[in-house]
Order: sequence, then structure tokens, then C-alpha cells
Amino acid sequence: MAYATTSAPPLKIPATMRAAVLFGPDDLRVVRKPTPMPGPGEVLVRVAMCGTCGTDLKIQAHPFPNQPPYGQFIPGHEWTGTVVVLGETVDEFQVGDRVAIEAHKGCGRCENCMVGMYTACLNYGSVAKGHRTSGLTTDGGFAEYVIHHVNALYRLPDDVSWEDAVLVTTAGTGMYGLDAIGGYVAGDTIAVIGPGPVGLMTLQLCKALGAERVILVGTRKSRLDLGAQLGADAVVDARQGDVVAAVRSAAGRRGVDVVIEASGAPEAPQQCIEIVRRGGKILVLAYYKQPVTLDLGRAVREDVTLYATRGEGGNNVRRALSLVAQGKVRGRDLVTHQFPLDQIQQGFRILRERESDPIKMVFVP
Amino acid sequence: MAYATTSAPPLKIPATMRAAVLFGPDDLRVVRKPTPMPGPGEVLVRVAMCGTCGTDLKIQAHPFPNQPPYGQFIPGHEWTGTVVVLGETVDEFQVGDRVAIEAHKGCGRCENCMVGMYTACLNYGSVAKGHRTSGLTTDGGFAEYVIHHVNALYRLPDDVSWEDAVLVTTAGTGMYGLDAIGGYVAGDTIAVIGPGPVGLMTLQLCKALGAERVILVGTRKSRLDLGAQLGADAVVDARQGDVVAAVRSAAGRRGVDVVIEASGAPEAPQQCIEIVRRGGKILVLAYYKQPVTLDLGRAVREDVTLYATRGEGGNNVRRALSLVAQGKVRGRDLVTHQFPLDQIQQGFRILRERESDPIKMVFVP
Amino acid sequence: MAYATTSAPPLKIPATMRAAVLFGPDDLRVVRKPTPMPGPGEVLVRVAMCGTCGTDLKIQAHPFPNQPPYGQFIPGHEWTGTVVVLGETVDEFQVGDRVAIEAHKGCGRCENCMVGMYTACLNYGSVAKGHRTSGLTTDGGFAEYVIHHVNALYRLPDDVSWEDAVLVTTAGTGMYGLDAIGGYVAGDTIAVIGPGPVGLMTLQLCKALGAERVILVGTRKSRLDLGAQLGADAVVDARQGDVVAAVRSAAGRRGVDVVIEASGAPEAPQQCIEIVRRGGKILVLAYYKQPVTLDLGRAVREDVTLYATRGEGGNNVRRALSLVAQGKVRGRDLVTHQFPLDQIQQGFRILRERESDPIKMVFVP
Amino acid sequence: MAYATTSAPPLKIPATMRAAVLFGPDDLRVVRKPTPMPGPGEVLVRVAMCGTCGTDLKIQAHPFPNQPPYGQFIPGHEWTGTVVVLGETVDEFQVGDRVAIEAHKGCGRCENCMVGMYTACLNYGSVAKGHRTSGLTTDGGFAEYVIHHVNALYRLPDDVSWEDAVLVTTAGTGMYGLDAIGGYVAGDTIAVIGPGPVGLMTLQLCKALGAERVILVGTRKSRLDLGAQLGADAVVDARQGDVVAAVRSAAGRRGVDVVIEASGAPEAPQQCIEIVRRGGKILVLAYYKQPVTLDLGRAVREDVTLYATRGEGGNNVRRALSLVAQGKVRGRDLVTHQFPLDQIQQGFRILRERESDPIKMVFVP
Repeated sequence: MAYATTSAPPLKIPATMRAAVLFGPDDLRVVRKPTPMPGPGEVLVRVAMCGTCGTDLKIQAHPFPNQPPYGQFIPGHEWTGTVVVLGETVDEFQVGDRVAIEAHKGCGRCENCMVGMYTACLNYGSVAKGHRTSGLTTDGGFAEYVIHHVNALYRLPDDVSWEDAVLVTTAGTGMYGLDAIGGYVAGDTIAVIGPGPVGLMTLQLCKALGAERVILVGTRKSRLDLGAQLGADAVVDARQGDVVAAVRSAAGRRGVDVVIEASGAPEAPQQCIEIVRRGGKILVLAYYKQPVTLDLGRAVREDVTLYATRGEGGNNVRRALSLVAQGKVRGRDLVTHQFPLDQIQQGFRILRERESDPIKMVFVP
Repeated sequence: MAYATTSAPPLKIPATMRAAVLFGPDDLRVVRKPTPMPGPGEVLVRVAMCGTCGTDLKIQAHPFPNQPPYGQFIPGHEWTGTVVVLGETVDEFQVGDRVAIEAHKGCGRCENCMVGMYTACLNYGSVAKGHRTSGLTTDGGFAEYVIHHVNALYRLPDDVSWEDAVLVTTAGTGMYGLDAIGGYVAGDTIAVIGPGPVGLMTLQLCKALGAERVILVGTRKSRLDLGAQLGADAVVDARQGDVVAAVRSAAGRRGVDVVIEASGAPEAPQQCIEIVRRGGKILVLAYYKQPVTLDLGRAVREDVTLYATRGEGGNNVRRALSLVAQGKVRGRDLVTHQFPLDQIQQGFRILRERESDPIKMVFVP
Repeated sequence: MAYATTSAPPLKIPATMRAAVLFGPDDLRVVRKPTPMPGPGEVLVRVAMCGTCGTDLKIQAHPFPNQPPYGQFIPGHEWTGTVVVLGETVDEFQVGDRVAIEAHKGCGRCENCMVGMYTACLNYGSVAKGHRTSGLTTDGGFAEYVIHHVNALYRLPDDVSWEDAVLVTTAGTGMYGLDAIGGYVAGDTIAVIGPGPVGLMTLQLCKALGAERVILVGTRKSRLDLGAQLGADAVVDARQGDVVAAVRSAAGRRGVDVVIEASGAPEAPQQCIEIVRRGGKILVLAYYKQPVTLDLGRAVREDVTLYATRGEGGNNVRRALSLVAQGKVRGRDLVTHQFPLDQIQQGFRILRERESDPIKMVFVP
Repeated sequence: MAYATTSAPPLKIPATMRAAVLFGPDDLRVVRKPTPMPGPGEVLVRVAMCGTCGTDLKIQAHPFPNQPPYGQFIPGHEWTGTVVVLGETVDEFQVGDRVAIEAHKGCGRCENCMVGMYTACLNYGSVAKGHRTSGLTTDGGFAEYVIHHVNALYRLPDDVSWEDAVLVTTAGTGMYGLDAIGGYVAGDTIAVIGPGPVGLMTLQLCKALGAERVILVGTRKSRLDLGAQLGADAVVDARQGDVVAAVRSAAGRRGVDVVIEASGAPEAPQQCIEIVRRGGKILVLAYYKQPVTLDLGRAVREDVTLYATRGEGGNNVRRALSLVAQGKVRGRDLVTHQFPLDQIQQGFRILRERESDPIKMVFVP
């Protein structure tokens, strides 16, 4: 199956487009806006699909730092689509290329960007200086068209579906974390806590990198079942008994080399400390509503490093996309809900109420 | 299919065993010798199969540094078998466990061993200080029984065949090299020069770690065909035209991120320099008869690092074995010749003359 | 000034020695015991001086895991002295060599030891398998003589004093932590929380590695004054106002690249999170009486890694000793109290009561 | 002594400036040109001093790839000066700031730039895409004024002299190489081959990072003497006897952990292989007129990695500058010749003829 758009005559881009604009707290409405035009190094993308994540709910509840003003701002930071206009100097892409994205573009001039840590850009939010996070500090993908810089764009092979591509950004988050811990987990035993989109993509990445055994911990049977289908070697229901003991038992004699915390549950960090083997690693990819409490002395005694990474930097979306294209990682199984963009309000209502357990909901403009 | 030995009553170990002893240059003969007994931290293994490599031919031609004396020395450094006697303090294994090995054990007291670089042990060859390389500086696997230290031993899952297990040591060489270059090649394009056992195992390891595209370079069609079966995405016949151009063309726009040189051909290092992309890595796993000539200035100009690794240290045999057990890497397809130990002379004659293109020849005691 | 012992005729070692033996909780008494003799790879050292640390108080209060039995056990894990007897195979040292130590020796056969992480040895406490921690799981340095393995021993240059040497083990703890975070802090701004021996040695190490600015945080003026003498560029009194604001102000525009927590204060980990710059590193070298509470989500949002290391592994005592020998790091300024071994009870009473603010107390047998 | 310019009223920038323009092979002439104006993210710098290096001679002999056209191009890639005009968005610097530079700015959009390897930018030479190398692919510092991007600019503390600052770029080359090999050489023994500016700065950096012993190898007594003044612990005259033996002897029992090749001599790479200890590292910072010949098999047998780095990327100029500002590294001792810009032709004649052994010649506009 091939999804490629035929790139024929120069595309006619309409002067206005439909877009979901945030007008105030929890007031997201689809309106018409002028279609933006790309600057140097940028392209215009016709959005095929834009996913949602927990952050989108937070953004709608209260403004994020460096967010564009109410009445203008288009959220949406996990999207895929087709390049339709090239900005000046762009020869990395052609009109008609289907693309996946990373959300972050660094300023390219701060100390962190200089060493490739651009998801921790010290000029975060400064559009003037060149930083952009699509759908957070600049307009994103809940729209027919969106601008993006080529340094955060990856060409899709023809046989990668939109549903797989829309999850590539999420996979990039897991991959960036795995990169931070060394990227070398072949033969390792890994526990993943939290079968949300990040956890379910990261579990697959671990298997694709050769992990021997991945143990998935969660609270919902449906999620654990999906995890098992996606390659988890064992699943642990956190509602049934002692999580630490259950994971250690599932790990066997080897112990758990790496624990990946993707749940955001307040008790999870302490579980990580108790699960990981001496000399092991903890990778935190989740956010917490409150400060967490954990036995840090044990980490010292056991020589444990705790990595906390943000976003999907450093060529990791490229790597993740390659694993998707190789058929080793699937995003499409996570797309449980699909709506036209015009029904974005209904969609977010379902998300807020966790009705019918949506994993990844996408909007199609 | 399960290969596990039933571990029943205490095994009866015969007082003497058959073993191939090196009596002088190219004078390897199967004789009876006393069966050795393991010391603390060691086990006795009943050899199931012992492979050969180019080094074995060199050892027979002229003695290696720190080699045991003629008339006593049993070569053979790639073997697999079953644990039959446990030395003092050993609880990591049980009698009946099937095992694969790494050949090297460090002294555990030099500066390199202290940081895990024990294949570069500064007390190489000093048995008194604790260093051992099976089949090179101590007796090896061309025998019915062999002693090994538990720190260089890995338990085989039941469904790993002897033929797969005997190649795990070779795979460990590739894996150690991949570890040295960062171990994180998912999505990368890699060229492997030299479809011998190291090259063919390393090619598979690269794919198992998620490499997007592996290009195999060789001179024999049969080897390239085998490489393609084992997962090479493209093959380049080095006898047909410009190798560098052919590899670059097969790599496509991405270029070659990593070149792995496993051929030992004198022109190969320069080809590596010309093939690898700016900022890429070269991994050398081969030995050369003569000094090589290469454009080192180009490596500087292009920010290229050249890694040269020896042996199979640092948990990499464990990782390689896991990939074999997961069914992602196969050794058995490389075992082209199998002889009883008593026919070891005939076997080595075939190897020397490269008769019928043996890839991996094994002897069964 | 040269401290070297002249190595003349074979030394006469007395059959018994004085040693401080732990007979029960807080019951440490100096008695006579047989002088031990070194095994293969070990030496006997005539102790010149043995330091104390907080762990010694804990050991006396209640037994540690894998501690030798009451009535036999000699604590003391920070000591220096002169080699007086060589065990079999030892040629790394000569009788008369003055030495500093690291406390840990790994088993050399577990998975962590194989990659050089022997302070996290999976056979911790198993003397049979080869693990030893001097003064914790085997007899230590509160004695006239002590056995040690050569792989944890470092020869002192002639001009390094005993007082400097006794702190080398402590410096190794800081150095191992700095190694874990990359070892490359030249030009960086670093905050060190806790001016105890570990903090004061680590502060000096940071300067010796080229840190541009080290800010020391503590609660006692005398300690902060000493820190300033030892090279701290700024000091912050944690009892005066907002620690986070004060450190940030002292750091200037650069921000704090690395925070090193060496205090064990319950509020310190959260301060680390608030002090470190985006993309920075936290190194924890302290132990805590209770679980700690911290804003882990902020670490994720800011791409911060938290390293927790134990002990002084991986050639780091050698490196630390070199910096001491180069005159860049001083231990002697920390030796505030010196007693004969026979007064060990009085000494520990002073330590328990923190009388006259001892920094490092040493006992001379 | 303070070198700071008082930043008073807005500076009056003349419409034209004097600059050395390359009109053809070896035809460098000082002419008047329009003073350039900085774009967004850039500043205009009043040049205080611009150094020369071997590359400048090569540029004048034959054009480099991506060099601006004859009649326009101003070379000079090692310079220092004072910021006089800020481009749009620049708040990192103020008018009056004295600055040092790194020569390279990456495109910020290729795969290498994304991970911080911008000196190996895949869009090298493409000004349109954002790449710049001052004095190589864009106008440089042999002029009264020069444009530079803020991401390659570092503020000088007041007490750093222009002579020290002009060598900071060179120091950055050594520092980037040291970063590549791990940046952690405290306590190590290091050999530096080649006492040119790169070698002499790198020797000092090694000492400033805590190296125990640095051995400098060269052919000219005056250079070796200067090296000894700058901190070399031993010097080896390559014209007197066996270099390898002499270095090994000077290294003592420890052996040489790292060899840094900064000479470009054809025999030096093989010497590196023979000098470095098992498991050690070789860092190549030089360029070669011809392919070099070396015993690569020995590198494999001895587990040796060969790093080759280009330029001064990744925050390393910042780190090097900090060491200069701390007084641990001196550039001024290398400035042997200083001429007004108008005498640039005479200067280069002296350089070409190696008259009076210039180490670093600078031109003052």
C-alpha cells in the first residue's frame, strides 16, 4: 500500500483555512484564518491528521508559558501531512513529500542548542530568536495548514500510513529518552510503567532495539492487553497486589536493568527505585501534579542514575520513524478515535471524561 | 526443539580425555590427556562443539605470545558445551547448564580491567595474575573437556542450538565493537566490508539493533548471497568496479553513518574513509598482514572517529546471545563444515586451502 | 619533604597486633589480635593513619549488611600506610611502598564488575566470591595492620603526606561522581551543597578540573570559611535567607551547570532541582535518613539528569591522588583531630557529640 | 590590568574600512571596502587582532572549497575584537563587549548540526542555509570590521589580553579534541606531538584539566623550551634517536594514556600507535600532505581508538576561554610576531619562509 501524494502542477493554496483557535480557557473553536506562508528554511504542510495528548488538555485549561495570545493561537503538536509550499533555501524536501515532525525547534544560538540539547533550549518560547514548539509556542496542527521548519521534519516512506506517522512524534519522546540512557538495551530487561501512548510506543522501541524482556505495568486490563499485543513479554496489573514484587518476579534472575516511568502516578518514582537492579537506570518521561517522595539514599547506595528527558530531540524522530518504516513499531494500533476537525470540541469532551478509554485521538482537517 | 541436557545424578567424569594438542608448528594431534579439574570460580565444561577461525591457523603456524608450551597446549577459542563440574564458590551455574563463552578473562587487577576493558588487560597472558584467554593463553576447546571461569560464561536458553551457540563468541566480537561506537544504530545506514564470520554476524547484529540499511561488501558471490539471506539490504561485489561509488549509491541520500571493516584487505581502511559520511564512524574488527595506508587528513577534515576493538568484552556476549535467542541473529547458517574432533587435521587442511569455501568449521569431540 | 620509608631488610612482622574490634553495639575496644597474612594478589599494610566518617558511627550503632561478627570485626575504611608483606603474585608493589586505598573491591565475576561498576557489585559482601569492602564487610584500618587487595591500592609519591593520603579515599568518592557525570567540567559553574569532607574534597576537585566557579552552600561559618580557603569562589550560608536565590545570584548569568549534593539534608534534593540550569546535572553523593520529596516533573521539563553514585570506583582514586600529588587538592586541611588508636573511644564520643566541629578525625595506631 | 572598552554613546561606524582582500593566488592586498552590517543574530566587531595559521597560506596558494570569489574575499579566521553594532534580536552581547570567537557556525538544520556536530555541518559552505566559517567561506578578520553570529562568540573578561584572546580559537581546537576523547584526563600521562600553536595550547589545556604528566615531542629546541615553560613535564627532541623509546621512557610505568598528534608529520601517526598504551586513545588534530601508513592491526589488537576532530565546536571555546581567564592557559607567549594590517604581505612572506621561527603571527588593523 502506498500513501504518496502525486506531486503534479504547483499546488493552489487557498488564502484562508479552517483552524481550531483557542479563544480562552477551554474555548477552542474552529474558525477561518489566513493561511500562513513559510519563511526561509520553512515549509507549509497540508495537515493530514493531528493527534492529541494530555498537554492539550492542560493548555486549554490554563495558558502555558510563551503561548500565543487567545484569539490567535492554534494548538496541536503531534501531526503529519504533506508538504505543499517550500520556503526560501529549502531543498531538503519537495512539494508532495509526506512528513512526520518533531515539535521542538531550538534557537540554534544558546549553549544547550550548541551541543544538540535543543529541547532544553535556553531561549524557549522566543520566536524572535528562532525557537519554536509547534502547537505550544507557535501555531500547530489543529488546522488545515501549518508552518514548520525543515530541521524538525522527516520524510515518510510511501508505505507508512498517516496513523503510524501521527504517532512518530510520540515515539520520538521515548526514543530521545532511550538515547539519553545510552541507546543500548539489547538483551536487557526493562519495565515500563504506564501504558499510555508514550509507554506503549516506548515498549515497542525497546523491543525493536533488542531488549530481551519488557514488562508493562498498568491499571487497565484493556491497555495491558494492547501492550501484550504490541510485544510486552509480561504485564503487571498495578491494582492487583505488590507491583514491585510482581515486576521483580516477572524479571527473573537478571533483575530489571532499566525502568521507564511513563505514568505520572505519584507512587511510580518510588516503585522505580525499588524495581531497578543495582547499577541500573531509571528514565522518567512523565509529569507529576505534585512533588513526589522517594528513597533517594537507596539510589546512591545502589549506584542508580535517574534520567529525565523532555521532548524528542537529537535525530531520534528520524530513528523512530525508521523503526516504524521497518515494521518493528506500530502507531496505528493506538489510534482509537478519529474525528473531523470540525468535531474537535466533542473530541476533547470525550478525552476530558476519559469516555471509552481513548488512547490516541486524532483530528482530520 | 529443546536441547537441554537433563541434569540428573552427579556426572561421572573420566580421568582422561581426548584433546587436540599442538606439538609444534602445524603439528596438531589428538591424544589422551588427564581431564582437568576446575578451581574456585571455574567450571568444567563438556565440549559440544568448537569452531575455528583464522587465528587458529596462525597459532599453528608460529607460537603466539604467552602460549602454553608445545606438547601441552590445546587450542580452540570458540566453543560451547555443558557444565559438568562446578568449582568452589560457583552458584551462578548448575551441572547440566548449556553454555556459550567469551574467550577472554581479565586479571581483574590492572587499570584496564578496573574499568571493564579486560580484553585489553595489561596482564595479558599472566595466568598467575588471573588472566586467561581460552585456546590462546590457556587450554581451549579442541578437547572433550575444558575449564572456564564463570565470568566468561553464559547460559543458553533451551531452544538455542549448538550451531547457533558456537557462533555467539564471534557475534560477541561484533557486539563489543558496536558497543564501542555507542551501540545506538537504529535508523542508521551501515556498510560492512568482509563477509567472513565476523562480518556476517555483525551485519545481523546491526539489523537486530534497528539499522535501517546494511550494505555488505565482499568478493565472493556465495558469501554475498548468504549475506542477503541473513538480512543485508544491498550487496556490493568488490571485484566489480568502484567499491566506494557502489556503496555510496546503495546508501542513498543518507550516506553511510558507520562503516565496519571486517575483511583485513589492505585497501579496505582507505575505502572506509571514503565511504563514511562526514561526522560518521569507522569500526575496525580485522587484522592486517602489513601496515595500511590511508588518507588520515580526510578523517580530520570530516570529523571521523576510528574505533578498533579486540575481543568480545563487557556483557556483549550476553547481549549477542539474547539476540540469538530472540531469533534475530542466526549462527547456524554459517556452520558450513562439521567434523569429529579426530579429523581435526583434515579439517584444518581444508581451511588452509580454502577448499569449498568454508565459512565456519566446527569440530565435535 | 619526603615521607618515604626506607625499604631495607625484610621486615619483621609481629605475630599479634593492636586493633579496635567491635564487640557489640557501640562497643568498640582496642585489643590484641593475630596479625593477618595476605593471600594471592593481596598485601599486608602497616597502617599509618585511619580516618572516620559518618558511616563508622552507623556501623557502631547497628550492624551493617554482610558485616563480620561482633568480637572479630575491625572497622575503618579510610586509611593509608606502608606495604610490609607481599602476597603471592604481587609485583605491582614493593615492601616499603606508601599507599592510599579505595575501600571497595568487586567480585570480578558479576555483570556489574564486568563493566567496571564494581562499587555496585552484585555479590556485595560475598568474601568467598572475591568481594571486599575494607572496614565494612572485611577487617579495616582501625588496627596496626590490615590486608588489602592490590587492585584497590595506589602508591603515594614521596611528597604526599599521610594527612593528604588519608583523605584520598574521600576524594575518590567525589571523583567517581564527577566521572559519572562526564568528568568534563572545565569552565562550568558548580554548586556544592554540604561542606563535610566529601563536599570539601569535591569542591577542590572541581576547581582542579577547571571549573570556573564553585559555590559552596553550608550552615556553619567555620566550614564555609575553610571552603573559601580551599578554593570556593563564593559561599552561601543556608541559614540566611533563600538558598536557591542566593546560589543563582552567585552563579550569575551562566547559571549552575552542575549541583553536587553532599549534605544529606532532607530539603537539599529539592534545592538541587531549583538551582540547576535547564539541561544541567545533579550529582548526589549523600545519604538520607528519610525518603525525600522533590519536584520530579520539573526535572523532566528541564531535561535534568540526576546521578547517584556510591564509592570511589574506576581509576578515580588514582586520578584524585594525582591531583593531590600535583598540589591541586589538599586533604590535610580537613584533618582537624588526630588521636592515638588507643583513644578511639574518646574520639568517637567527640564525633557523636560533634564537639568542636570535627571535620576529619584520624586515629594513629 | 583591564582591557575593557567603555561603552558610551552609540558608536559611529565609518562607511568604509580597510581590509586585506584576496585578489588571486598569493595576491592579498589591503584595500578599502564598504563596512558590512550585521543581520539578525549577528554583530559587527571592530577587530583588535587577527592571527594566522597554516591554513591561511594554503588559502592564498589555491582557493578552498566554498571560498568567496577573488576580489571580494577577506581571509582571517582567528581573531578577537570589540562588539560595535548589534543585529536584530541580539541581547546576548552589548556594544563594547570584548569577544573571542569560534570560526564555525553550522547551518542548524542538517543531521550533524542537530546533534551539536556543527563543525562537520553537512551544509558546509552554504551561506544561504546558514553555515559560515569566518575567513574561509565568509569574510574574516584581516580587516577593521567583521560580521559574526552570536552563537560563535564569547565575551572576554576584562583581564584577558588581546594576545591571549586571539589564541582562544586555537585553544578551542585542542579543547574540542579533548572533549571528543572524553574530556577526563586528570591523572593521565599524555604525549603531544608537534609544538605548533595547536600543540602548545593543547599541552596547556591537558595540564589545566589535571593531566599528571605531559610529554612534548618536537624537532626545534626553541619550541621545546617554550613547551617546557608552558608546563610540559618532559620534552623529546624527535631529531635525537628513537622517539617512541624516548616517550615511553619519559612516561614511566604508567605508559601513555593519550597521544595527541598535532604535527602533520608523515611518520607521526605510526609513532602514535607505538607510543600509546593498550586501551589508550589517539587524538589527531593535524592535516597531512599525503596518505599516511600505519599498523592498524596493532590498534585492533590493543583496543585503541583514534579520534580525528575538526574545528572548535560544542561549547569548547567557552571552556578554553575560561581556563585562559583563570590564568591556567596562556596564549600571549605564542604571539611571536605582531604587524600592522598594512604590512600583511611582509608578514606572510616571513611565514612562508619560516623566517625567525614565527609561532603565532598577528595583524592589527
